[in-house]
Amino acid sequence: MKKILILGAGKSSTFLIEHLAKTAESKNREIIVADLSEETATKRIQGLPHTKAIRFSSDEQMERENLIQSVDVVISMLPAFLHPIIAKDCLKYNKHLFTASYESAELKKWKEEIESKNLLFLNECGLDPGIDHMSAMQIIDNQKALGNEIISFKSFAGGLLAPESEDNPWKYKFTWNPRNVVLAGQGVSRFIRNGKYKYVPYHMLFRRLEKITFEEIGEFEGYPNRDSLSYRPIYGLENIPTILRGTLRRTGFCTSWDVFVQLGMTDDSFEMSLPEGFTKRMFVNSFLPYHPDKTVETKITELLPWVNEEILSKIKWTGLFDNTVLPKLKGSPASILQLILEEKWALKPEDKDMIVMQHQFEVNTGTKTKKIISSLVCIGENQERTAMAKTVGLPLALAVDLFLDGKIKQKGLVLPISPEIYIPLLSELKKQGITFKEKEEDLG
Amino acid sequence: MKKILILGAGKSSTFLIEHLAKTAESKNREIIVADLSEETATKRIQGLPHTKAIRFSSDEQMERENLIQSVDVVISMLPAFLHPIIAKDCLKYNKHLFTASYESAELKKWKEEIESKNLLFLNECGLDPGIDHMSAMQIIDNQKALGNEIISFKSFAGGLLAPESEDNPWKYKFTWNPRNVVLAGQGVSRFIRNGKYKYVPYHMLFRRLEKITFEEIGEFEGYPNRDSLSYRPIYGLENIPTILRGTLRRTGFCTSWDVFVQLGMTDDSFEMSLPEGFTKRMFVNSFLPYHPDKTVETKITELLPWVNEEILSKIKWTGLFDNTVLPKLKGSPASILQLILEEKWALKPEDKDMIVMQHQFEVNTGTKTKKIISSLVCIGENQERTAMAKTVGLPLALAVDLFLDGKIKQKGLVLPISPEIYIPLLSELKKQGITFKEKEEDLG
Repeated sequence: MKKILILGAGKSSTFLIEHLAKTAESKNREIIVADLSEETATKRIQGLPHTKAIRFSSDEQMERENLIQSVDVVISMLPAFLHPIIAKDCLKYNKHLFTASYESAELKKWKEEIESKNLLFLNECGLDPGIDHMSAMQIIDNQKALGNEIISFKSFAGGLLAPESEDNPWKYKFTWNPRNVVLAGQGVSRFIRNGKYKYVPYHMLFRRLEKITFEEIGEFEGYPNRDSLSYRPIYGLENIPTILRGTLRRTGFCTSWDVFVQLGMTDDSFEMSLPEGFTKRMFVNSFLPYHPDKTVETKITELLPWVNEEILSKIKWTGLFDNTVLPKLKGSPASILQLILEEKWALKPEDKDMIVMQHQFEVNTGTKTKKIISSLVCIGENQERTAMAKTVGLPLALAVDLFLDGKIKQKGLVLPISPEIYIPLLSELKKQGITFKEKEEDLG
Repeated sequence: MKKILILGAGKSSTFLIEHLAKTAESKNREIIVADLSEETATKRIQGLPHTKAIRFSSDEQMERENLIQSVDVVISMLPAFLHPIIAKDCLKYNKHLFTASYESAELKKWKEEIESKNLLFLNECGLDPGIDHMSAMQIIDNQKALGNEIISFKSFAGGLLAPESEDNPWKYKFTWNPRNVVLAGQGVSRFIRNGKYKYVPYHMLFRRLEKITFEEIGEFEGYPNRDSLSYRPIYGLENIPTILRGTLRRTGFCTSWDVFVQLGMTDDSFEMSLPEGFTKRMFVNSFLPYHPDKTVETKITELLPWVNEEILSKIKWTGLFDNTVLPKLKGSPASILQLILEEKWALKPEDKDMIVMQHQFEVNTGTKTKKIISSLVCIGENQERTAMAKTVGLPLALAVDLFLDGKIKQKGLVLPISPEIYIPLLSELKKQGITFKEKEEDLG
């Protein structure tokens, strides 16, 4: 009997556990779900065969090592910063490791050791990173096989709301980690366009927007996301003149969000310590120039001349102009803003989330240039069975299943970018309703 | 014979060494000047009595400890990050320590140990921090003694060019560490105005300007500098409704500098790695949106609508629009910008620097409100004997002299904010030509 250890029983593990449990009996496997809270782990396996829930803390070294030693395969859904600890144990006890997190610099250092021990460490096998790699590589490999040259690749993704749940002026709620949403885009974003290197500082990011259209669900805007240049070697597109990865929001979100960025309210680099009774309105005012009698609203429009009534009304809706006391007085501006937004951007019980992803390729066939647009829309079932949980968890479940069936033969430190992995995974994801729609246009 | 060790023989040590050497014979003292380069140390003591030059590296622990053990007093002009190492040695061997650097968190941890050993560790005893503390505290203590209440304190300082050397459109050249100039203002600046807390993110800093006038030398602009709030407990102004510290530049500098900030060219958080032949013009373009045929100049004015002909001409003057290859292709944007500016903002042999400082107090006397303006202008003699070296080095020399004469009796971890220190120091600085001019106005 093969033992699969799943570390972390948060919402993201729902589909992962379910899918593996389906065939656990027929394939003679046991699934051990380990979480800091035994209750969470127990809830997650309710009614599922061949599963076991246990309490687990990454801090308790002996118990952790004993647990990892006792299984065949480890899937880590823990926060990314804990992966080096888990990976080290896997190396020590010769266990295979699967994650949906970015391949870290630490893991790269152990590349040779992973290979020499004939282990598979498959990272970036969730949604983004994960499904983005697989779906892009399938098109890239196909076009290369046809002898075509890819001259432009733009790829956008977003974790958003299902259209029927877009019932606030931002058309946005927190469908995943609120802290990551508030800090999204910090640092410098890099890409290349028509051979020109482009660097976008954070305070300019939410103005550098592209319009992205999905046939069924309408228009979005995409802003550049981190280091697009680093994808060139991974995708075998070293000399491509245009490559850009971006994050999607509903149209109109970014110019309003930019107000928070411009004022400094998303700063996470220092701690504010505000006096008793400090209100949300005072919080906004603390980022605006002093004036003896101008209102906060007037000062915003004077400082940021592009702010119009629509943007102001979105900000007003968050409660930031209210004379009510802040939810906390100590913490970074970003952490205070997060708490304020959590009150307003909370999901209602009936709300559904939505994952959107779109790849746009320009391909030179020798005789003409064509555009290939490949789009994914995935809508969640409810607040527990979210599109995010499905698209992050299923690829991992499928990969582990295929690996234990002996159908993935690759070993070493690996991303899901080879046909051996992406062909069966994308085909199985399709059966589960995660389908890319492809469209081609001649550009002449 | 008392031995004074001076660590670091850079330009800033010129006046420090000279002043201490003047009385070395009569006061039976020896001055040991230690530098990584023995040549630099030797040059710095040329013709001065009772001095000795030696090679010194903070890395060589045994030699370092032996040296510190052999003296009575240590003055460290080393980069601030080395001060904890030196301070630890001083603690170990019971030596007094003097620096012109900010009192670090590490030093604060050793406060009790410094006191229990009856040592004097006097930090922030240069120009800024240093002369700013002393001159402000003299006014604050005087006003408090008169029973007056200080309701506003703004303080500005800058290391600039003497008016006769302002021969470029920026009216600026590097008169001190170019890297610090390029990175100046990064982080979030904090102050309080009329009881309102104000937080200014870096990308808004160079728009939040105040006009500052000096009678003899005209107009400047000041932008908020780091954490002004932290000065309230130091100066005994805990409940003051307005406190602001700022940095001075010649009028017009900041709005042009802001173009670099807005584009992301002062970013020091990531490394660029640019292809062979990358020009200054391409460097600017890499921070601008892509367009198939718009010029760099057009794109700047479209992205930053406040950029006018005057600002564009200042940028053009730096060479950034030229089709010449960058001075280096690898490094942070800030480090590349620094090299470009160093070519243009280099001092000519005949250039002189200038230090400007202005305190503005508003004081409530019970019957009226008055404004006290206290201004310092100090012009350098030449490129070696700069105003910066004079104003940084002399306060340290004077403090050490007074201490060895037994006239400073304070011990512990100390700033130059007590009358025992600032009265004799300011009086002696006056004799050396470093004089504040004070002016009072009734505000009614």
